[in-house]
Amino acid sequence: MAAVNNRQILLASRPRGEPTLDNFRLVEAQVAEPGPRQVLLRTVYLSLDPYMRGRMNAGDSYAKPVEVGQVMEGGSVCEVVKSNVPSYKTGDIVLAETGWQTFSLSDGTQLQKVDAALGPISYALGVLGMPGLTAYTGLLNIGKPQAGETLVVAAASGAVGSLVGQIAKIKGCRTIGIAGGEKKCRFVSGELGFDACLDHRQPDLAKRLQAACPNGIDIYFESVGGAVFDSVLPLCNNFARIPVCGLIAHYNATELPAGPNCVPLVMQNILVKRLTFQGFIVSDFASQLSDFMADMSGWLREGRVKYREDITDGLENAPRELLGLLKGENFGKKIVRVGPEHRV
Amino acid sequence: MAAVNNRQILLASRPRGEPTLDNFRLVEAQVAEPGPRQVLLRTVYLSLDPYMRGRMNAGDSYAKPVEVGQVMEGGSVCEVVKSNVPSYKTGDIVLAETGWQTFSLSDGTQLQKVDAALGPISYALGVLGMPGLTAYTGLLNIGKPQAGETLVVAAASGAVGSLVGQIAKIKGCRTIGIAGGEKKCRFVSGELGFDACLDHRQPDLAKRLQAACPNGIDIYFESVGGAVFDSVLPLCNNFARIPVCGLIAHYNATELPAGPNCVPLVMQNILVKRLTFQGFIVSDFASQLSDFMADMSGWLREGRVKYREDITDGLENAPRELLGLLKGENFGKKIVRVGPEHRV
Repeated sequence: MAAVNNRQILLASRPRGEPTLDNFRLVEAQVAEPGPRQVLLRTVYLSLDPYMRGRMNAGDSYAKPVEVGQVMEGGSVCEVVKSNVPSYKTGDIVLAETGWQTFSLSDGTQLQKVDAALGPISYALGVLGMPGLTAYTGLLNIGKPQAGETLVVAAASGAVGSLVGQIAKIKGCRTIGIAGGEKKCRFVSGELGFDACLDHRQPDLAKRLQAACPNGIDIYFESVGGAVFDSVLPLCNNFARIPVCGLIAHYNATELPAGPNCVPLVMQNILVKRLTFQGFIVSDFASQLSDFMADMSGWLREGRVKYREDITDGLENAPRELLGLLKGENFGKKIVRVGPEHRV
Repeated sequence: MAAVNNRQILLASRPRGEPTLDNFRLVEAQVAEPGPRQVLLRTVYLSLDPYMRGRMNAGDSYAKPVEVGQVMEGGSVCEVVKSNVPSYKTGDIVLAETGWQTFSLSDGTQLQKVDAALGPISYALGVLGMPGLTAYTGLLNIGKPQAGETLVVAAASGAVGSLVGQIAKIKGCRTIGIAGGEKKCRFVSGELGFDACLDHRQPDLAKRLQAACPNGIDIYFESVGGAVFDSVLPLCNNFARIPVCGLIAHYNATELPAGPNCVPLVMQNILVKRLTFQGFIVSDFASQLSDFMADMSGWLREGRVKYREDITDGLENAPRELLGLLKGENFGKKIVRVGPEHRV
């Protein structure tokens, strides 16, 4: 181990608007020795997720920001290299919050063992992890899908959106996806089995959405905001539910959009149609993890849920890939392979 | 009866923006004779409520609009004058949807007998009627008040707001009202027992609201929108609930307010603080009427709920009084006394 350094990607500066590569810095440091009651982890897969954009800003959101000069935060699948914690041994594969680095220390309390029998270990960052639990709990607890209802979800080829739509199909909903580009749309309606998928890069989204939802919209799983939200709102049925888990279209905004101020219009829709808007973050539903794991691993095994990863090699590429993710350039769950699954 | 005409107030024209007296017309017609299975009703008390502004517009809201030339809609407490329906007899006092007129016919199916033992019969239009049920069901089902939480409600001296705050107090909440003018505020914090009441006509509402809510806001019962909403939003705690039952500040708007467009700001608050916004109308909770009647009549009897009426004599004054209501000129539940309780 002596010859190997820990490579880390730090937040070098806070972005103003769209982040750039200059906001990140790659540094090398010595790999630390685990102390008593510590394990040394080697990062295998690093998850890239839209929430990371929020952590780059100053000011608390639902979580504290990453400080300038600190390692970027992120979840990862790791191998235990050395362990001074009795419940972990060398070679164990664990889910951890290591941040963007090749090695890290943990006291073991925040680790979860990854069950390789359920699927590729990288699935712990997606379909069997945080994005999967987000889709599952937000849809079932807030969306409350009923057979015959119509669900709309954007970013439909992505980690969360693809699962929202497929779970809604399992629950008997008519499921309409929205995605960027023909290739993604073909994947969503073909491979994933959505009833339709609309390309938001083509004109007249509102009109096409209306045509695709002849019975209106009962559930809109909100992860993007912007033009998609504007197209959805007039189509909502009475008592429609809108779980709000993200607003990627607005993450880089440095000021509010120009007027008019449409808040009264949104509120009027809420009132007249008795809509429910409810925000959530995945940790609000942590208690449903075991139900989720049982259901989702079953659906995967039965082929009822399909899942696509978009894997890039090399920690040094994580900044570029996050910028791409925020522009919708990924195709499937974005993961960085930081090192091999098994040490060579 | 032959000498008495039915006086009716019709919607003469649709308002553009703020309604005026010209939008109404008083006409006289012969009092109809009840046919078989009909009752003839004499209106005693007519309720005036903010929702009536919506009925004056073209286009469906949650209810169909009043057509131009039709009698204005409204709930009333009536005396049965003649009855060809076995379950009603002359002299019965009933709650009805007669609209703005002195006499009307009914087949009896939409009537409810008013129990004079529970309070003055006009209470069936307020604390023991639709506004009371609105306050009770919206607060309990959507607001879900917990002891120690902070509730904010605007129009706090009005029919719904005054009851929302008093029920929240009964449930152990810290209760902050907002009302227009010093007299109303003194009534709300003195007579009704709210912890504080802020005058929205004085400057710096946002700052004063923050000072009055040192632990943030857990429930905002929304009936007004506008500047009050803007002051409330930044103070909402994680998991705050916002039942939406009205938006009186916007009812006369002919266009959306100038920008910026604050929808992304509202959505970000929903996401980050996991807020719940839910619209409702009172009929959604009609099944809870008997629970409501039991609780509310008990609270009235025990003096735990106080209730103020603002009664004007004469059907011909209903248009002027509705215009005043929409500007907050009423002080308490607005009612028009159309005729005496007992025929003279």
